[in-house]
Amino acid sequence: MCQIDTPAGERAGALGQRERPHHPGAKLTRGELRATLSRRRSHVKVDDRVEGVRKAMKRAGVHAFIFADVDPHQSEYVPDHFRTRTWISGFGGSAGVVVITQKSAGLWTDSRYYLEAAEALAGTTITLFRDGLPGVPGYAEWTASDLSPGEVLAVDENVTSVALYRRLDAACHDNGLTLHTGIDPMGNLWKDRPAVPDDPIFLHEERFCGRGRKDKLEELRSSMAGKRVGVTLVTALDDLAWLFNIRGTDVDYNPVATGYAVITADKALLFLDPRKISDTVGRALAADGIELRRYDEIAAYLRGLEAGTVLAYSPEKTSYGLYKAIPAAVRTVEGVSQVARMKACKNETEQKLLRSTMVKDGVALENFFHWLEEGEGQEEPTELSAARKLRELRSRGEHFVGESFAAIAGFGAHGAIVHYSADEESDVPIRPDGLLLLDSGAQYLDGTTDITRVAAIGRPSAGAVRDYTVVLKAHIALATIEFPEGTTGPQLDSVAREVMWRHGANYGHGTGHGVGFFLNVHEGPQRFGSQADPVALEPGMYTSNEPGLYREGLHGIRIENLVLVQEGKETDFGRFYRLETITLCHLEPALIDVSLLSDEELRWVNDYQSTVRERLTPHLDEPVARWLEVKTAALVR
Amino acid sequence: MCQIDTPAGERAGALGQRERPHHPGAKLTRGELRATLSRRRSHVKVDDRVEGVRKAMKRAGVHAFIFADVDPHQSEYVPDHFRTRTWISGFGGSAGVVVITQKSAGLWTDSRYYLEAAEALAGTTITLFRDGLPGVPGYAEWTASDLSPGEVLAVDENVTSVALYRRLDAACHDNGLTLHTGIDPMGNLWKDRPAVPDDPIFLHEERFCGRGRKDKLEELRSSMAGKRVGVTLVTALDDLAWLFNIRGTDVDYNPVATGYAVITADKALLFLDPRKISDTVGRALAADGIELRRYDEIAAYLRGLEAGTVLAYSPEKTSYGLYKAIPAAVRTVEGVSQVARMKACKNETEQKLLRSTMVKDGVALENFFHWLEEGEGQEEPTELSAARKLRELRSRGEHFVGESFAAIAGFGAHGAIVHYSADEESDVPIRPDGLLLLDSGAQYLDGTTDITRVAAIGRPSAGAVRDYTVVLKAHIALATIEFPEGTTGPQLDSVAREVMWRHGANYGHGTGHGVGFFLNVHEGPQRFGSQADPVALEPGMYTSNEPGLYREGLHGIRIENLVLVQEGKETDFGRFYRLETITLCHLEPALIDVSLLSDEELRWVNDYQSTVRERLTPHLDEPVARWLEVKTAALVR
Repeated sequence: MCQIDTPAGERAGALGQRERPHHPGAKLTRGELRATLSRRRSHVKVDDRVEGVRKAMKRAGVHAFIFADVDPHQSEYVPDHFRTRTWISGFGGSAGVVVITQKSAGLWTDSRYYLEAAEALAGTTITLFRDGLPGVPGYAEWTASDLSPGEVLAVDENVTSVALYRRLDAACHDNGLTLHTGIDPMGNLWKDRPAVPDDPIFLHEERFCGRGRKDKLEELRSSMAGKRVGVTLVTALDDLAWLFNIRGTDVDYNPVATGYAVITADKALLFLDPRKISDTVGRALAADGIELRRYDEIAAYLRGLEAGTVLAYSPEKTSYGLYKAIPAAVRTVEGVSQVARMKACKNETEQKLLRSTMVKDGVALENFFHWLEEGEGQEEPTELSAARKLRELRSRGEHFVGESFAAIAGFGAHGAIVHYSADEESDVPIRPDGLLLLDSGAQYLDGTTDITRVAAIGRPSAGAVRDYTVVLKAHIALATIEFPEGTTGPQLDSVAREVMWRHGANYGHGTGHGVGFFLNVHEGPQRFGSQADPVALEPGMYTSNEPGLYREGLHGIRIENLVLVQEGKETDFGRFYRLETITLCHLEPALIDVSLLSDEELRWVNDYQSTVRERLTPHLDEPVARWLEVKTAALVR
Repeated sequence: MCQIDTPAGERAGALGQRERPHHPGAKLTRGELRATLSRRRSHVKVDDRVEGVRKAMKRAGVHAFIFADVDPHQSEYVPDHFRTRTWISGFGGSAGVVVITQKSAGLWTDSRYYLEAAEALAGTTITLFRDGLPGVPGYAEWTASDLSPGEVLAVDENVTSVALYRRLDAACHDNGLTLHTGIDPMGNLWKDRPAVPDDPIFLHEERFCGRGRKDKLEELRSSMAGKRVGVTLVTALDDLAWLFNIRGTDVDYNPVATGYAVITADKALLFLDPRKISDTVGRALAADGIELRRYDEIAAYLRGLEAGTVLAYSPEKTSYGLYKAIPAAVRTVEGVSQVARMKACKNETEQKLLRSTMVKDGVALENFFHWLEEGEGQEEPTELSAARKLRELRSRGEHFVGESFAAIAGFGAHGAIVHYSADEESDVPIRPDGLLLLDSGAQYLDGTTDITRVAAIGRPSAGAVRDYTVVLKAHIALATIEFPEGTTGPQLDSVAREVMWRHGANYGHGTGHGVGFFLNVHEGPQRFGSQADPVALEPGMYTSNEPGLYREGLHGIRIENLVLVQEGKETDFGRFYRLETITLCHLEPALIDVSLLSDEELRWVNDYQSTVRERLTPHLDEPVARWLEVKTAALVR
């Protein structure tokens, strides 16, 4: 699943975050469906809420307030409790910011949601700002021009990251405004506000994750000692899940649980709602010396830190509200969290399991594409039914937990809408001729997958074949690269992108994103994008390789495999790393023009196809195996 | 001439700057030669100076002071007046920082200068810190550990950029130290301190620079109006020279003059030492509405700015001392200077002249290589005599002013020392077998050149041929790239670098740097380096393409041409740009293994060679023309 490749903080939906969802899957989540239904019941509610909020703002002396669907942990998916922008506007898409002033109200969202947002706002007093169109001001710029010097902008400090708070504060300062926190304009207005989930957590067994939590804590502590850090504050939910080998069901797709942790040289404190912890889980954690605290005790804990303590935390992943609890006499060390760095490099057990998880995921995919091409009974597949079928096939795999995001199945022109997701209204049959772009993934206890393939339905056009082959060349360029120690993601982004450029093409998303292990499908800190990345690539990092090409009104093509960074050759110029492709699913031979491939590229394709065949065939029924043999037959000039 | 590819502020010599010299040419400058001579006369002086400085520090309550050879304009080459590090340490290399504390004293320099610095410091109490070696602390880190919390670090605010001041201030804050300015520990100690040069400026005629200063000022003002900027402060000397079409001789190689400028909607004020301005020049400037002020009046001018004024300036190019003069009620807009952005895009006249300047520069180079290979009389060339010969040949070209940096001629293993420069001690004859790396450039009134070629003396080894061909492939990859509007330098850096990676090689410098027009050979804001660059590439930008490969003890290879960004194709994916290679000098056929080249690469080489032959032959004597015909004959498989 691709990520939009724009700087953090420049996207409306992002509100300064990097890992917010960039796919339409969220439209299918529980919260969004509910929000959409409730919005359809009454447009009037929105204006009532806006007016109520304005009154609360007036009482608090605030002239503008920013609403976004963000939680205190800056998560990609958030519990309904934190969907304040959806509540105030009735618009439930995965990207959007609302600003309410006394005079005006605006919603900013990107091109994926222009239509849906316009529909949601129809009949309300909220103006839609189509982010990304020429001449459309950003929300910060608009707010600055709507307010007068001396006036007050406010945000909810509990869901505003320290990094964003600082940017907004600087922007306010530049425009003679003041940034406030501490007002809650929803207050009593949001009568039926859902509670923060109290879903129980469960343990991720060591046979899957490969390392005990004591071992992880020990490594973290040794790193802290090396940097003279006394206390590490863990705020990102996937960092928390990884460090303690716990998982949860608080949100869709991401198997995380809401909590905080504090690690010192001799303590490991886990701050969780006590209802989340069963006796069994509690005993297991206690046995490893982990002390449990209530979720809401974290601020008090920080306030009690002694002067001179050195505290490491991540300004991008910590709310300003919590940051304020840190005493001034505590010295803070800011940056990418050490836990995120450790989590990014998959251990030997994880790498081994990922390779075998790719087999069951590949088997489901090959069964799916066989079903799609060869038919099975009378059903004519549509985008939605195809996605359901794939989910059903994947669910037969051992340790399957769910999808890692809502599958993107786009047929023909729909494939060119990078973040398309079918719904009941847009759904179309997959026929007669055209390309089907299918981006999907699964959560298994033994690994997270994410793959994009393009199937040719009927006879592909010459243009489709050329485009697919160009994307394939870009994919191969990255798959075969070797790079020196110290290389960062943006340097590898160009390796794939320049191939597209030479063919006059380009794509608006990044070339790859980090992936978790039975964790978030978008995981930092590394990525292959054009924006600067302070983190060098290291062995064990698990990342997608997914260049694409989108022709509006015609078709969309993306070829996505997951790769592991591995040690490579060592030369006079130092140590090199390489990328090991581990995803297993055939490339479509009908879409490959071998005359456009170099000898090396052709060899890579044939090697890849034969690996897919050899690894998957033992697990396929006879007809599917025979069909796959044809699909993966060696291509010749 | 290549630039080291490390982040700003991480190099000792840089003291936070980006455009400091990364070549040893400075060893040959007037100031450095003098410094070296004076150092050789007495080692005792150094410790006397250190002790004198310590006393001054003690009186001022300062516990550490940083010395660097930096001027108030953050120039690459600085007048002797500003060489305080050379004065205190006796070490005159182009990169180095000295820190003096009450207990200790250290000099930080990089690998180019380990030897020379060790020699300079022998017998002194200053410790040499070899920057870049494992375990060697940076000067900021060392200073923090040498001082105790509560103590005071001081810098000269007049030569410390705002950007560096902020970084040092933050580092001091993190370590419980205080950063002071306002003390001058040299005071009366530096008895014979040279004055700031009062060399006269001269006008750069419009027939060369293509645009009048009124026209440039008008464009700047229109840009200012669009951004609601009321005042632009010009601090970089090359910005100043470009904007007013003036040049000077204050320093070696860079034809700039020391001054400041302030541009408002209706005023253009030029702050210069009045002795620099002849009557003729003064009248010409006055005729274009430019008002002259004394150099030392700039601070007073800034102090007088009205509250609410919006002032644009560059924190990387402005001293903290001058910045302090800006009243708090003035709003500052920070970033890359608009003048630098305008200057970077060469106009049509400049582009046309550069193409013809390349002919005379190429003629000098071909005459030089012919002389080197075929001999002429009895003289056996050495590294130094070859560089002198090339300078002499170039000086015959029309409008020749001087070299754009001290030529780097490195034979055999010397070529692998990236910033090698021959001196009387290191100089070797260019014989019998080996590669000669020659990096050189010239200043003409009608353009600045910078080119690197490698000549094969005797019979090249198979390894030399392979290495040269790999560098050539990397060079061609960049020379032939087309890239979409909005692409930045780091994205293009990877285009060349990945070719090297695939062959297990790499280089420690950037792939290219911006170049001025009869201005600095290192000119921002764009560059092809691995570090993030906020500036997108635009048509008219003039940049080097210079991948390299260095085998310690064996040989060094770099192939450098200058390129102009030009408009390219327009596709469904938007507008693309391409690079026009304009440097004219043959590539060495004896070093090219055609079996390693693709058909496209071979075609590029043959096209380039025939362009060189066609453009230069009319200007060459018969024997040289015949020789060049052989050199540039089409290569076949």
